[in-house]
Amino acid sequence: MIYREKTLESHRIYEGAILNLRRDRVLVKGDRESWREVVEHNGGVTLAAVTEEGKIVLVRQFRYAAGKAVLEAPAGKIEKGEDPLPAALRELKEETGYTAANIKRLCSFYSSIGYSTEIIHLYLATGLTPGTTDFDDNEAIDVVELALPEARAMVLRGEIEDAKTIAAILMAASAEETEKLL
Amino acid sequence: MIYREKTLESHRIYEGAILNLRRDRVLVKGDRESWREVVEHNGGVTLAAVTEEGKIVLVRQFRYAAGKAVLEAPAGKIEKGEDPLPAALRELKEETGYTAANIKRLCSFYSSIGYSTEIIHLYLATGLTPGTTDFDDNEAIDVVELALPEARAMVLRGEIEDAKTIAAILMAASAEETEKLL
Repeated sequence: MIYREKTLESHRIYEGAILNLRRDRVLVKGDRESWREVVEHNGGVTLAAVTEEGKIVLVRQFRYAAGKAVLEAPAGKIEKGEDPLPAALRELKEETGYTAANIKRLCSFYSSIGYSTEIIHLYLATGLTPGTTDFDDNEAIDVVELALPEARAMVLRGEIEDAKTIAAILMAASAEETEKLL
Repeated sequence: MIYREKTLESHRIYEGAILNLRRDRVLVKGDRESWREVVEHNGGVTLAAVTEEGKIVLVRQFRYAAGKAVLEAPAGKIEKGEDPLPAALRELKEETGYTAANIKRLCSFYSSIGYSTEIIHLYLATGLTPGTTDFDDNEAIDVVELALPEARAMVLRGEIEDAKTIAAILMAASAEETEKLL
């Protein structure tokens, strides 16, 4: 049986640039009370972008929260009022220079469902045409292209350390196996 | 070229039960400044637990941040000072009742690398023996067992909406294909 938790009170703790934080008192299982810390985030997009040669386009950049550079699928935040699809095409262009003739949504998932409202929309992008990158002012990004089977092998060896990138690589590899690439 | 961002100042905004929040002023690309909002989280564990019959053991529970019940791999927070492996075995037992004769780490990944320090360790658990569950006081969990190919098909149809669960199912399915299940 699934109990729905009811909000009893909500405290705004922080309103920021990329996230807000609130702390809510909630009613669980009918008569118990607990607290929930919730990060509010506007959501993001990420892409499994696959070239004509069957290479997946990844980016390596310094990540402050991790304290190091990490290999990831291209990604970015959805701006207020923006639809996910144009956000995905924009981030692909900005971070890798590529434009995509074909794009379709593979899935949408919560990144940290225990405490964050963030949903990331994952797109498969093919029919790629190279172009110039257009990083945000405070980004510095290296583009890395890997044959899809090699990227998949890296995931299976535990070498990819970002959740959305694991999803992007494994879902693109599965789509390729079943010839569902656009 | 990857630039390392340097912390110029750090503001503690919130110290909570499952997360802290800080806001740092940082130096990027040598002479630019920016701000980084960072959620500090002690990390978590999740499991691809596969029965002798080839079923993956999932749980469905209400998630306050999502505002609904979500189907997920068993998971939980790592307690302060706790190692990930015993945490994984504990959460498997608490949430599903199962104990595992075999367990090995498949990978570790950042859940929300843009703003959170949270790392989730994903384990493959086999040799399962059923037992009684032992939920936390404020949890209410349904156990759902799915044949691995069906769970994989749900991922590929975009029906699984939790990042760690997508990783758990696809990595377990790949391990099964290559006969690497323990």
